[in-house]
Amino acid sequence: MLRVLGVDPGLTRCGVGIVEGVPGRPCTMVHYEVVHSDPDEELAHRLLRLDRRFAELITEFAPASVAVERVFAQNNVGTVMGTAQAGAIAIVAGARAGLPVTLYTPSEVKAAVTGSGSADKAQVTLMVTRLLKLAAPPRPADAADALALAICHVWRGGTRDKLAAALKAARR
Amino acid sequence: MLRVLGVDPGLTRCGVGIVEGVPGRPCTMVHYEVVHSDPDEELAHRLLRLDRRFAELITEFAPASVAVERVFAQNNVGTVMGTAQAGAIAIVAGARAGLPVTLYTPSEVKAAVTGSGSADKAQVTLMVTRLLKLAAPPRPADAADALALAICHVWRGGTRDKLAAALKAARR
Repeated sequence: MLRVLGVDPGLTRCGVGIVEGVPGRPCTMVHYEVVHSDPDEELAHRLLRLDRRFAELITEFAPASVAVERVFAQNNVGTVMGTAQAGAIAIVAGARAGLPVTLYTPSEVKAAVTGSGSADKAQVTLMVTRLLKLAAPPRPADAADALALAICHVWRGGTRDKLAAALKAARR
Repeated sequence: MLRVLGVDPGLTRCGVGIVEGVPGRPCTMVHYEVVHSDPDEELAHRLLRLDRRFAELITEFAPASVAVERVFAQNNVGTVMGTAQAGAIAIVAGARAGLPVTLYTPSEVKAAVTGSGSADKAQVTLMVTRLLKLAAPPRPADAADALALAICHVWRGGTRDKLAAALKAARR
């Protein structure tokens, strides 16, 4: 059973989802939330709030692995910097806790939960709701992408984590 | 006397410079270095190395303020994401230590040390060497920009820090 913290990075709204499960079987939803920060606030305070919240979530829910959405420079110019910065904070929070951190592209995540790398947001939300057997779609919607990332990692990356650990052990 | 940690963010080469001084007078160089990381290494490890080094530098040199170069999405697409991520780690390292963090654009820094916002790298290095009365230009050159940032903040931001602190005190 692998418990994964998924992060859909954003500065104003950062989606966080924690699920657990094994590859090929439905996962269980453990927690989800959206960490908000005010665009009028100083950047340093906004990043610090994220940094603290990630540390709290890792302590509280003890995930074994962190999955973060990979951000591309070609994305929306207006938000790409904030997204990259929020992503960096999530990555370091995982690394600081000694957890493996894996990055997935949006199409990898979409393909993992819907079967199509070009699925739209509604389709991802629908599949996340179904796969986690939730009574209603996650609200706010930003959390659905984070849950999808966590599911994607349970299914795809769990094996990868184990291989990496085995390889590390063999090298010792 | 204000001691400032300047950071010219970069993932592969991150310039760090620490100076102290008062507005309008030559500053003193305290320390400079370039934190390197290997592009072949995992992103999480690269960011973690920066995170740890910033924390060590803040403990060792006890700066009162942090100045970081502001990154724009319009910058070099090939390196802009790494630069934004390294910048986020520097910003949070300062904020976590309770230090004020100020961002400066490259032109603000150039204007502060050379008098021209469009000065080239050689001119900035020359002025940093002169202003800090160094026997030779800082090597590696990436450190010169970080020192320029720190000088810029001593001259421009020192007053700002004091005003912010006074305002904060008045509000209590």
